[in-house]
Amino acid sequence: MRVLGVDPGLTRCGVGVVEGVAGRPLTMLGVGVVRTSADADIGVRLVGIERGIEEWLDRFSPELVAVERVFSQHNVRTVMGTAQASAVAMLCASRRGIPVALHTPSEVKAAVTGSGRADKAQVGAMVTRLLRLSAPPKPADAADALALAICHIWRAPAQNRLQQAVAQNRLQQAVAQQASAVKGRTR
Amino acid sequence: MRVLGVDPGLTRCGVGVVEGVAGRPLTMLGVGVVRTSADADIGVRLVGIERGIEEWLDRFSPELVAVERVFSQHNVRTVMGTAQASAVAMLCASRRGIPVALHTPSEVKAAVTGSGRADKAQVGAMVTRLLRLSAPPKPADAADALALAICHIWRAPAQNRLQQAVAQNRLQQAVAQQASAVKGRTR
Repeated sequence: MRVLGVDPGLTRCGVGVVEGVAGRPLTMLGVGVVRTSADADIGVRLVGIERGIEEWLDRFSPELVAVERVFSQHNVRTVMGTAQASAVAMLCASRRGIPVALHTPSEVKAAVTGSGRADKAQVGAMVTRLLRLSAPPKPADAADALALAICHIWRAPAQNRLQQAVAQNRLQQAVAQQASAVKGRTR
Repeated sequence: MRVLGVDPGLTRCGVGVVEGVAGRPLTMLGVGVVRTSADADIGVRLVGIERGIEEWLDRFSPELVAVERVFSQHNVRTVMGTAQASAVAMLCASRRGIPVALHTPSEVKAAVTGSGRADKAQVGAMVTRLLRLSAPPKPADAADALALAICHIWRAPAQNRLQQAVAQNRLQQAVAQQASAVKGRTR
């Protein structure tokens, strides 16, 4: 499974592509940052992020795009920019029919370090180890994007099992409802 | 001047086109709502909003797109959706080279009703009167989009004068700096 992780931001939007399956060593295919100038108008910045994300999608053809789920508990101005950048990333993926998955920062930290409250350095160190890199990817946004992709690959089997269970349950309910409806009619 | 006003939202994104200049009667060219299903994935919803906004841009070729400036003081979930929908609207406009202007809700209310704390009904009533409509546009999001467009048309002259003054000032400073640099060289 090939996943593009996106750590959304207007000034620095981290991007990283990881390939692999849970339980086997993972491979980093690419990592980088899409930057836009803080002096530019917001619309122009969003166009810059769109172009950047499109390039990464063209270059790596990921099967899924994992984006950080944005909460508004942080700094107001930052959150707005993060929400807007994440919207562009999700739009670019969905326009191509590529599924989008959202993971919270603590899910990502817990996936790669074992603790949902790990700091940036710890996440960077684990990303370096898990992807067998010679040094932690810089800036931190780039490392975070890789961590998002790793998190998705590792969580995917569990999520798939959960989705299958939910689908199975819905199917059984629908069959039961139909059966009782038939029973009602034939009574 | 022809302005497309956008009241951003994921479930209902209000859109309205107004033509005119400050000091003369205004004309409504179109009003509506771009809707997306709350059951759909966020990426799919953003694609739906993109398509809707693109249709309005194609149909009315506005010279400017006025979008509500989003604050995070309101409900957390709503604000995220609003920020994401507004990002798509700004992206669509900027991609075409159409300038984007942001106005706060209180600027819009003050522009059309005289009070920054007016309620929805008051805004709807004034939009109806100012555009000489037979009834207030429904839903409120559609009326708010028209109010945004009106607000921009009315505020634009003052903003233009301000921008001109700033540009004039920068030019004078640049000329003065160049003059003193020349003076330095020839001394």
